[in-house]
Amino acid sequence: MTDSTPISSIGEFGLIEKIRSIVEQSLPEGEVDTSPEGGFIGIGDDAALFQPRPGRSILLTTDVAVEGIHFDLTYTSLRHLGWKAMVANLSDIAAMGGEPRYAVVTIVLPAKITVEMVEDLYIGAYQACREYGCRIVGGDTSTSLGNMMISIAMVGDVAGKPFRRADAQVGDLLCVSGYVGSAHAGLKILQREKQRFLESRGENGFRPNLEPYKDVIERHLMPRPQFDLARALRRAGVHAVIDVSDGISSDAHRIAESSHVGMEIIEEDLPIHPVAREVAAEFGDSAVDYALFGGEDYELLFTIPREAFDTLQAREVTVALPAVSVIGRILDGEEGLTLVSRTGTRGMLPAGGWDHFSH
Amino acid sequence: MTDSTPISSIGEFGLIEKIRSIVEQSLPEGEVDTSPEGGFIGIGDDAALFQPRPGRSILLTTDVAVEGIHFDLTYTSLRHLGWKAMVANLSDIAAMGGEPRYAVVTIVLPAKITVEMVEDLYIGAYQACREYGCRIVGGDTSTSLGNMMISIAMVGDVAGKPFRRADAQVGDLLCVSGYVGSAHAGLKILQREKQRFLESRGENGFRPNLEPYKDVIERHLMPRPQFDLARALRRAGVHAVIDVSDGISSDAHRIAESSHVGMEIIEEDLPIHPVAREVAAEFGDSAVDYALFGGEDYELLFTIPREAFDTLQAREVTVALPAVSVIGRILDGEEGLTLVSRTGTRGMLPAGGWDHFSH
Repeated sequence: MTDSTPISSIGEFGLIEKIRSIVEQSLPEGEVDTSPEGGFIGIGDDAALFQPRPGRSILLTTDVAVEGIHFDLTYTSLRHLGWKAMVANLSDIAAMGGEPRYAVVTIVLPAKITVEMVEDLYIGAYQACREYGCRIVGGDTSTSLGNMMISIAMVGDVAGKPFRRADAQVGDLLCVSGYVGSAHAGLKILQREKQRFLESRGENGFRPNLEPYKDVIERHLMPRPQFDLARALRRAGVHAVIDVSDGISSDAHRIAESSHVGMEIIEEDLPIHPVAREVAAEFGDSAVDYALFGGEDYELLFTIPREAFDTLQAREVTVALPAVSVIGRILDGEEGLTLVSRTGTRGMLPAGGWDHFSH
Repeated sequence: MTDSTPISSIGEFGLIEKIRSIVEQSLPEGEVDTSPEGGFIGIGDDAALFQPRPGRSILLTTDVAVEGIHFDLTYTSLRHLGWKAMVANLSDIAAMGGEPRYAVVTIVLPAKITVEMVEDLYIGAYQACREYGCRIVGGDTSTSLGNMMISIAMVGDVAGKPFRRADAQVGDLLCVSGYVGSAHAGLKILQREKQRFLESRGENGFRPNLEPYKDVIERHLMPRPQFDLARALRRAGVHAVIDVSDGISSDAHRIAESSHVGMEIIEEDLPIHPVAREVAAEFGDSAVDYALFGGEDYELLFTIPREAFDTLQAREVTVALPAVSVIGRILDGEEGLTLVSRTGTRGMLPAGGWDHFSH
């Protein structure tokens, strides 16, 4: 049985002390400059302070996760939530070709959230930071009369030219890393098993059946930012880059609009995991829809000239990188965005993606 | 009658376009470097990008405001809310001796919030940015199943040594700018008039009686960061600085703990506005309690050697700065924190301040 200490019993300042003890663990020496010259002050002053690294530009991003909209505590552990909230920000930094440096974490907590749950949340956030070379340097806390919320802002930096959505060029290949649609497939399973659990009313020793789906569930609960691939893309000479947070379709439209280009996406070439295909089949859904509109895969969608792509593929032999799939190509702006189906018919690629205000 | 367009009718991307048109208005030329060399990309890419200014350290802070905890939409206009949420961050940058540069704004919106309300919120936030030389460069939006929330993160920079809580020295004077307790007095009036309005049930043409209290209500709704004073403090040679966000008592304790010093505060010397005294009297409260525990005044609390204080006062003749009051002095750490009453009795200064999790 886990302890469950109400936050009111230790107060805001007690809670901040607990958080401090988690996030002030040092990173391995050399990973982050915490020397006095590095100018890092840390949690406690009015703002965190650090030195910019010579010759680098600064990146600033933020991402919020709201209970009932982005996560459901029935099937999301606080540790996964902390990890994923941090990864949403890390992935933005990766998609700009940057390196993460510092994060501030704001949590808004209803009374049901215990001290132990907050500790778990910060452990997850801390683990993601530690794995990718970031550091939590402050934040804010508040109670909530409604739902729980976690809002993270992250500063990174970039040496040389950042990756931009606006840099796609006609003739580029359109590529994506890893698998797309997996996170959405994982979500569908978690939602179904929650529903079954509620309907069982705890009778008959109901246990959710998650094992066959663990490849896609993990992609929903514990996505990873693609820093290694981003570094390889820089060396190879990538053009436009974006992370797949809202689904291939929505993110492809963003590149197209920013770069004033058209695109052709070949449905058959979308990399969909076999388990995601199975899940879609179980629900009578289209697996292609999961890939195009599902979102939260945090893969990189990018455009790259053919010769740079060949360079990238050659490197893949020596460095362990996620697989990269060519899913289409960049056309003139007048061509619009086209989806080529398995049967060869060409249709307009719908702009849809996850829109929180319309669903 | 104001328009009230539901956000669902324009969707998340329509809303972002509306926000973009507000925050992408240019600042007066020269105030912020928006040239391509300045490297500013703006809203739309995965992260905002900018160049650090040579020789400066970077500051990062964040502050959240939650409906029902930090604000009440019955008596807070969206424009005031946007302004104040931005000022909470600006004030942190001022208290570090820095200059604000860029902000990311995250809003979590229940269905009752209309497009026009969001526009008002951003106009208020934009106005605070414009007045103090900051720029909104991104953010995130989400629906909420519960209350409204606004979370802002801000990057600033500082030339030379930042102000720190840890720099108080024995023998320093303890000073505060402007008035303390005013914001809390304003809040008390707004809460009372809301209650009266609810009790009137709209009968008898009830109108809230706010005019006599406008000095303190404005301090609650539209506080100001103290950048001019912070610059003068730097020139004069200030030691520790903090902004009064949680009340003099709580913030004085933070300086004392960080600097390992004791303090003596003279109750009689606390600068309390006459209207705040009147409000406290109306409620049968202690005006000193408002000053010590009220919070949200966003004045600067600082420690400064006597000779530096004299320099500061001399400068005040030529530059329009808020009044500064000496409210005590810094003692050895063993002395603890003492409050000297009007009758000369010495008591321990309670550490209390606004604790969201205990109230």
